[in-house]
Amino acid sequence: MPVFVPELNRSARKRKLILDAATQAFLSRGYDGTSMDDVAALAAVSKPTVYKHFADKERLFYEIVLATTDPMSKLVGLVADAFPDTDDLERDLRAFARQFISALMQPDVLRLRRLVIANAERFPEMGRAWYEHGFERALAALASQFQRLTEQQLLAAADPEMAANHFVGLLLWIPINRVMFTGAPDATSDAELTNYADAAVRVFLRAYGCS
Amino acid sequence: MPVFVPELNRSARKRKLILDAATQAFLSRGYDGTSMDDVAALAAVSKPTVYKHFADKERLFYEIVLATTDPMSKLVGLVADAFPDTDDLERDLRAFARQFISALMQPDVLRLRRLVIANAERFPEMGRAWYEHGFERALAALASQFQRLTEQQLLAAADPEMAANHFVGLLLWIPINRVMFTGAPDATSDAELTNYADAAVRVFLRAYGCS
Repeated sequence: MPVFVPELNRSARKRKLILDAATQAFLSRGYDGTSMDDVAALAAVSKPTVYKHFADKERLFYEIVLATTDPMSKLVGLVADAFPDTDDLERDLRAFARQFISALMQPDVLRLRRLVIANAERFPEMGRAWYEHGFERALAALASQFQRLTEQQLLAAADPEMAANHFVGLLLWIPINRVMFTGAPDATSDAELTNYADAAVRVFLRAYGCS
Repeated sequence: MPVFVPELNRSARKRKLILDAATQAFLSRGYDGTSMDDVAALAAVSKPTVYKHFADKERLFYEIVLATTDPMSKLVGLVADAFPDTDDLERDLRAFARQFISALMQPDVLRLRRLVIANAERFPEMGRAWYEHGFERALAALASQFQRLTEQQLLAAADPEMAANHFVGLLLWIPINRVMFTGAPDATSDAELTNYADAAVRVFLRAYGCS
């Protein structure tokens, strides 16, 4: 039986309250628009409590951004589970493309993307870590799928990393940029997203298909 | 002969000084990191002079962002001048892709991109205007080229807008995102950029070529 440690539990609970409040504040107001006072008020804890857990705003920000590579882990899982023993690659790629685009177009994922990009020049370590643990990890998982499909002679991707890059670029260039520039997460309708997914798969298979 | 109007000239000159100083400040420090005091100091004018020309920081910011769709006009020109009467589309597309990628990877263009994205949710009108006058204009110019090439039976792009979107996505997805996330404008070497350009053209022609 676990020993009951109320102090530790309380401390962990407060830490979580602070992280949740800070995530919400950073995502909606940006780095500069968020103060440690705001975080304390939103978390309903005192300011010294915030500083007990996080030495300064910058460290709190790093922790939050790196915690949010978690949604990327889900995406990597989505990639890893796609098209096992496929007997219709076009159909399975299309299903995957639709899931992938809709996972990336979630408002909170898009807000996080904006937050990282906005602060990447100021905090290059944070940006690089996010790029490597998030962006590149999903791309690497897709590349290893394309390599397997090429070994099975279902695809002809001599450079699977470039093929993964091309697949995602075909799929996301317009919808992601439209949100990033216009600030409207719903700027592209679900029907348009499906259309982008299907068009990307068509073009990808024309370029990388075996038939 | 033009009448000499020293007062007007002086005022226009000061306005230009302020715009240049503000552009530099916004690009390097962001919207929140820039104050009207900073702008006045950088332009070596008084703060009331800044306010005489620009009612507030927000209006100054809009004006600067929209003025910087000018580099996009150059890009549109680059697109419009590409492959006239081509007798080797692959060679000409490759030359164009290399020019296009290097025009978009200029540090100031990338900084502007970050600045617009960072503030798009807060100032959606500014973001939308930039997207329409900048991003979409270049894409439309490329689409009209692809339509012409399709009419000449050099390309098979039934949907020229989607083809333009695909061309640019194949080309820019990795190099642009790498800079946006890592904050390092030189994260991709010139040799890598050339490699991305050539790979994009190869894949594009496999999908949209006539042969």
